[in-house]
Amino acid sequence: MRAQGKNVLTFAAGEPDFNTPEEICEAAIRAIKEGKTKYTPSAGIPALREAIAAKVTQETGWQVAPNQVVTSTGAKQALYNTFQLLLDAGDEVILLAPYWMTYRDQVELAGGVPVVVKASREDRYIPNPDQVRAAITPRTRAIVINTPSNPTGAVIPREILTQLVEIAVQHNLWIVSDEIYDKLVYDGEHTSVASLGEEVQRRTILINGVSKTYAMTGWRLGYLVAPPQVAQAASNFQDQVTSNPSSVTQYAALAALKMDMSGVTAMREEFHARRDLIVQGLAEVPGFQIDLPGGAFYAFVDAHERLGSRTDVEIADFLLEKAEVALVPGSVFEGDGCLRLSYAASRADILEGVRRIQCAMKEWN
Amino acid sequence: MRAQGKNVLTFAAGEPDFNTPEEICEAAIRAIKEGKTKYTPSAGIPALREAIAAKVTQETGWQVAPNQVVTSTGAKQALYNTFQLLLDAGDEVILLAPYWMTYRDQVELAGGVPVVVKASREDRYIPNPDQVRAAITPRTRAIVINTPSNPTGAVIPREILTQLVEIAVQHNLWIVSDEIYDKLVYDGEHTSVASLGEEVQRRTILINGVSKTYAMTGWRLGYLVAPPQVAQAASNFQDQVTSNPSSVTQYAALAALKMDMSGVTAMREEFHARRDLIVQGLAEVPGFQIDLPGGAFYAFVDAHERLGSRTDVEIADFLLEKAEVALVPGSVFEGDGCLRLSYAASRADILEGVRRIQCAMKEWN
Repeated sequence: MRAQGKNVLTFAAGEPDFNTPEEICEAAIRAIKEGKTKYTPSAGIPALREAIAAKVTQETGWQVAPNQVVTSTGAKQALYNTFQLLLDAGDEVILLAPYWMTYRDQVELAGGVPVVVKASREDRYIPNPDQVRAAITPRTRAIVINTPSNPTGAVIPREILTQLVEIAVQHNLWIVSDEIYDKLVYDGEHTSVASLGEEVQRRTILINGVSKTYAMTGWRLGYLVAPPQVAQAASNFQDQVTSNPSSVTQYAALAALKMDMSGVTAMREEFHARRDLIVQGLAEVPGFQIDLPGGAFYAFVDAHERLGSRTDVEIADFLLEKAEVALVPGSVFEGDGCLRLSYAASRADILEGVRRIQCAMKEWN
Repeated sequence: MRAQGKNVLTFAAGEPDFNTPEEICEAAIRAIKEGKTKYTPSAGIPALREAIAAKVTQETGWQVAPNQVVTSTGAKQALYNTFQLLLDAGDEVILLAPYWMTYRDQVELAGGVPVVVKASREDRYIPNPDQVRAAITPRTRAIVINTPSNPTGAVIPREILTQLVEIAVQHNLWIVSDEIYDKLVYDGEHTSVASLGEEVQRRTILINGVSKTYAMTGWRLGYLVAPPQVAQAASNFQDQVTSNPSSVTQYAALAALKMDMSGVTAMREEFHARRDLIVQGLAEVPGFQIDLPGGAFYAFVDAHERLGSRTDVEIADFLLEKAEVALVPGSVFEGDGCLRLSYAASRADILEGVRRIQCAMKEWN
């Protein structure tokens, strides 16, 4: 539609609209000029693995050594490595819906079977530990936890996380903890499962990366932190798939992790203001149910009251057509009847987009 | 050993010792400064896919459209995608030994079964089509061709390639053609299987990348070129594993493909001189059998006459210990009794390394 000259506003993107901070770009340029363009170890350069280990230790108390860190071409690859290693054919993995759809695809690619536990707006999209417990079978091998959440923005409170990991310990499950939005929390604070004790750390594969926090999506640098044998296996496996993530990207990521956090804080404050703006606007649409999400950069609208006999996909298509606004239907994330709007967009675009949605929804019967 | 202060000379590396050409580095720096650090399509930016399609069309006559190109985090990932897509459990893949060991690992990761056809120094490491034909069963799904070859440096002549692809056509096999060393040929010329007609193109997955030709190993940029449905499937699959290769790397690779070839020619001429130097020196070692390899940057020594009751691994260990020279035993590549020496090393190091090997082998009984 844009190619046809239409002014489509997109709230579909999963990436910050900010530029990568100057300091990080400078480090990458320096690496290029210094000829740091050769193969590195598949798991990454030692300095980067050390910096990640230090960060995790400092933030969570988990005493992580550099050999427990494997850097990858995006957090996506860290997750792919994880499922490929953990799962045998038929192993079940608990996913907490609404969830990032890649989890399902990757679990299935590894021969695993997703078992879905759903939370709704009434639960503020926080998983219910009793329902998780009820979903466990002798084949359950892992649970995926994602806080703050894509697509809902939900931040799982410490007491719920504690219950979830207790279940994992009791049933001898791996905990795959995707914390890629950990620095984008607006209310309360992020709790890492890795901060919940040694019994938990022993079974945790922590997933993170620099994409969201430092506006570095295109560079492709994620990582996993895991018990040493798991990390070694992940490194060996990755060695057969891609080898090292780009060497230049690794030096950029190293600079990101060493940077003072003021740039990140400014970005978070801007997201905070945008969140308030978009949620306020969407809440004014009759039949759109939405609360303030605690983190990430997604507004997740429950549109059930407006569905009638139709679906969230049809609303999304209607809004694209009528309002020239692009967003992602919730059913993509097993959040049927909902809509996900990324607020990684300027305030002006958010205001205009919300106005268009408000107008268009008057015509949706 | 280096950490202990020893002066180990290494002939083990699979990467050029040259720096990435200035022009390519400048393009990457420009991309960073212009903020080209966001997600790209998983298969790569359109300009890069177009440049690759144009190159393949121009060099081979295969009329390739950009949607037939998928860029990846290294040619390794292009190969990984390929095997994951082509193979069902139990499918057989013909590997022509000595071969790059990653083929075996990737075939097995995809549930496939490697079937090995060996060539020896008497064959000049050129596969024998009759033996290939004899290895085919109803389960054979693909054949992997790698010319110029890692580890032997062999360049498969056009008439042999023609016979190999005829077999593939006749038995309805996929042809996985790894041509990563295509620009490093010193005698005769490189023939791409993609130049052998439409019947062949229809079943070819051509693998290449910028790592070896442009001294860009650390950047990680490879690609596959395939019939449109295969390319689309590879793009979809890669979207679940890593998404796009680094955006900065893609702009660097684009500059590489647009560059005039004088830098590459100079590098090839240097490799040519080094090849002559190392082969001459190694041929003087009693019982070392070696001919001039036509391409790549590896010298492959047949050391059978010196084995006695021992193995190539023991010679490699002995040379590391006695001569402080690192090389790779041929058995890694199913080239038992042989040794692979990369001549991606300075002439001075080559002369000194050869001298040390000559000396040390006098003490090997």
